[in-house]
Amino acid sequence: MNERLIFVTNDDGYSSRGMEAAIEVARRFGRVVVIAPETVQSGMSQAITMYNPLYLRRIPREDGVEMYALNGTPVDCVKMAFDHLLREERVDLVLSGINHGSNSAVNVLYSGTMGAAIEGSFYGCPAIGLSLCDHSADADFAAAVHYCTEIVRSVVEGGVSTPLCLNVNVPVGGVDSLAGVRVCRQNRGFWREEFYRHQDPRGREYYWLTGDFVNAEPESEDTDEWALAHGYVSVVPVHVDLTDYARLDDLRRVLK
Amino acid sequence: MNERLIFVTNDDGYSSRGMEAAIEVARRFGRVVVIAPETVQSGMSQAITMYNPLYLRRIPREDGVEMYALNGTPVDCVKMAFDHLLREERVDLVLSGINHGSNSAVNVLYSGTMGAAIEGSFYGCPAIGLSLCDHSADADFAAAVHYCTEIVRSVVEGGVSTPLCLNVNVPVGGVDSLAGVRVCRQNRGFWREEFYRHQDPRGREYYWLTGDFVNAEPESEDTDEWALAHGYVSVVPVHVDLTDYARLDDLRRVLK
Repeated sequence: MNERLIFVTNDDGYSSRGMEAAIEVARRFGRVVVIAPETVQSGMSQAITMYNPLYLRRIPREDGVEMYALNGTPVDCVKMAFDHLLREERVDLVLSGINHGSNSAVNVLYSGTMGAAIEGSFYGCPAIGLSLCDHSADADFAAAVHYCTEIVRSVVEGGVSTPLCLNVNVPVGGVDSLAGVRVCRQNRGFWREEFYRHQDPRGREYYWLTGDFVNAEPESEDTDEWALAHGYVSVVPVHVDLTDYARLDDLRRVLK
Repeated sequence: MNERLIFVTNDDGYSSRGMEAAIEVARRFGRVVVIAPETVQSGMSQAITMYNPLYLRRIPREDGVEMYALNGTPVDCVKMAFDHLLREERVDLVLSGINHGSNSAVNVLYSGTMGAAIEGSFYGCPAIGLSLCDHSADADFAAAVHYCTEIVRSVVEGGVSTPLCLNVNVPVGGVDSLAGVRVCRQNRGFWREEFYRHQDPRGREYYWLTGDFVNAEPESEDTDEWALAHGYVSVVPVHVDLTDYARLDDLRRVLK
């Protein structure tokens, strides 16, 4: 059997700690190629770079991992991999992450990590977005590495059909303290935003986005937010048909 | 009855021709407030600006429209409207567009126009993304203005329930040559990308994204691509639960 080829990217940049955690997972399953953003691309969603040239820069490593940095978005990195660098090869799996911070609930829409995972799934191989619900600089990725490894093993060895895109979130805690893996649906909720207002050194007023997530259904036990709040690793299968089928008939009556 | 409040944004920037076309539609239904990006934000999807301060700049106009430019993404503009500028008011409708170029099929995911429309729908009012399938500088917006007006009228007067987000695309053609409005589902398909490669003036190799959309189901008559190809204005109702419900049971068996 040929060695598997695992493509890894993220939205925190090629030099993030979460990237090394993702590589640790990926190396257990085959040859690893990384193209990741030069700089932090959190909140970049499924954005693509249309009006700037992209530069691909080789990052030397001594562990056999082929790594490049790209001055673009996470989705640009995936396109660069499949449509250029790995065009002649068969990629067996896309891993995006491990993100510093949660991408559960509606955050799947804003997340650069999940933007890259969704993009990866377009190319016909399984794609998994991995996130640890911990923004701190000294976050412990041990449990995330453990559970992500288990999930990747199940996907690559379990005969899961494609297209497949998973949104995996790991709560804070040690391997033994977590409750296990739970397949969920996306929680309904929204961000209540605030804009931090201040004056810059030139006296101009600026705004900076901040806010809190509001869980619209905290009692629902089948959501990713509930799973995470109860110590489970949440796994949400993601698809990209945004059609609201339930509204079609209603709208056909109204829009003649 | 109080005058309606219509919030308008786009992804082509506050000074684009499509913005003026959207304002022409919006003014027919009430008071118009615009916050739109300073610069072109095409392909920015649902991206938010997390690591930069935002500056809000008033753009003087003499037509009664209250317009601001923001150095952020389309979604930033929507958040700035609902969570700051219009926080104390009730917005009746969000219009995003009119975009220069199609946002049908999978482009709904990459589109800054639709990112803003989706974001607007989170705030509980109807939100409509408007696009004209014409990138040319001298594109004729007359048919787009006509049909978008009809659709907005149906939404604001027709008692359509919220949340509601519509992805409206208008094909090239005059008002009389188009076939009418068609409520559709999102077409399945993907982008086959290529990277244009060249050397910059310093001799460094760069890449620039380009590509073609591949329609995976050209014969399906219920899709937006089919509608546009046959001269119809396509309307796809959009929702934001990305859960792939059909995969839940399968995954629960595989991921234990």
